[in-house]
Amino acid sequence: DIIAAIRSALTDGPLTGKHILVTSGPTHEPIDPVRYIANRSSGAQGTAIAVALRDLGADVSFVTGPADVPAPSGVRVIPVQTAREMQAAVEKALPADVAVFAAAVADWRVASQSGSKIKKQQGKLPVLEFSENPDILAGVSQMSEGRPRLVVGFAAETDDVIAHATAKRARKGCDWIVANDVSPDTGIMGGTENAVTLISERGAEEWPRMGKDEVAQQLAHRIVDYLAKK
Amino acid sequence: DIIAAIRSALTDGPLTGKHILVTSGPTHEPIDPVRYIANRSSGAQGTAIAVALRDLGADVSFVTGPADVPAPSGVRVIPVQTAREMQAAVEKALPADVAVFAAAVADWRVASQSGSKIKKQQGKLPVLEFSENPDILAGVSQMSEGRPRLVVGFAAETDDVIAHATAKRARKGCDWIVANDVSPDTGIMGGTENAVTLISERGAEEWPRMGKDEVAQQLAHRIVDYLAKK
Repeated sequence: DIIAAIRSALTDGPLTGKHILVTSGPTHEPIDPVRYIANRSSGAQGTAIAVALRDLGADVSFVTGPADVPAPSGVRVIPVQTAREMQAAVEKALPADVAVFAAAVADWRVASQSGSKIKKQQGKLPVLEFSENPDILAGVSQMSEGRPRLVVGFAAETDDVIAHATAKRARKGCDWIVANDVSPDTGIMGGTENAVTLISERGAEEWPRMGKDEVAQQLAHRIVDYLAKK
Repeated sequence: DIIAAIRSALTDGPLTGKHILVTSGPTHEPIDPVRYIANRSSGAQGTAIAVALRDLGADVSFVTGPADVPAPSGVRVIPVQTAREMQAAVEKALPADVAVFAAAVADWRVASQSGSKIKKQQGKLPVLEFSENPDILAGVSQMSEGRPRLVVGFAAETDDVIAHATAKRARKGCDWIVANDVSPDTGIMGGTENAVTLISERGAEEWPRMGKDEVAQQLAHRIVDYLAKK
């Protein structure tokens, strides 16, 4: 991986001179100092995308929550914990030619976050009040100035994948949605393979099940094509 | 580690012939297929305890939640996700001479767990209803028949550590509590060191800050002494 990073730094690729922002991993939203709410996300797909883009010569800013998979070398790594930290890191990393939002950002955070450990009391259950987290994908997709030329979102769905993801693309205002079915029986979550559908202005394009590395490489090449055409 | 495991299997130690149950790691309590509530626990201290006991000849059953640290070799590893799965695994692993409950078990689970991903809807926040999880430590401590001769609990506290841990020992009915201060500024959570206070029938004994491995070895030797005396 280090050798690949050095090679890509020394060699011109189709993405040389392009700054690409990639978010990856879950966010952790604290309940109190010892408890948190998280999304299941190993960070494997986001990391593979950062690697594929780096290998094509891109200058990659990699904003990552606490992932299982280590961050790649040869990219600018910005580690964060919460959705709000991720939003701040994304804003700081912009402008970018392309932004790929592969992170599984928590939609909600705990509004009533406690500074000390919530004690267990017999018969008394905690009440967690939630606040909505910033919608990072929609925010960047709908920027009036300095919007990346291509904004790619991800949709992790468990049912009705294409319908949900198509609606998400319209609602957020992003260019592409990479949708996948994360139902437990697919084994995709935490696994090495992925089966994605790319939702774009051209409709839904189902990709065959393949390694997360291959999904990343295919996506990276599609990004090259997109930037070449516009 | 494999060599140590083989050595301990071939050599008699002071705990040879003793069956010791160790729980470790966090539990993950699902909210829906992609979200969960977790406790911050790397599993480092519980894993170190299993290793120390194994190295003294014990036959170790290691019930572990999804920890960051890999489970040791030379012990019987029983992986679980939730508190209820951990309880079932503990009951199945008993009887044991000693039980060390080092896991950071979630006190609550989500009662309203959803089989499909909860969708984000504008202006509508999810309501999570909680149920109390089984109290595994209290359950084993208060067994009327077949109780382990020594039951050790852990207390992760952020304030008033000794008072909270002493009250916990009385409330649960366990023999010892290993208490530690997990306030973020101690760096203990997720770190390699620990500063513990052992609460026993003899009161509170503060141990100096040391490596988690050393805490484990010191605790293992105290267990040897305890079993020798009774």
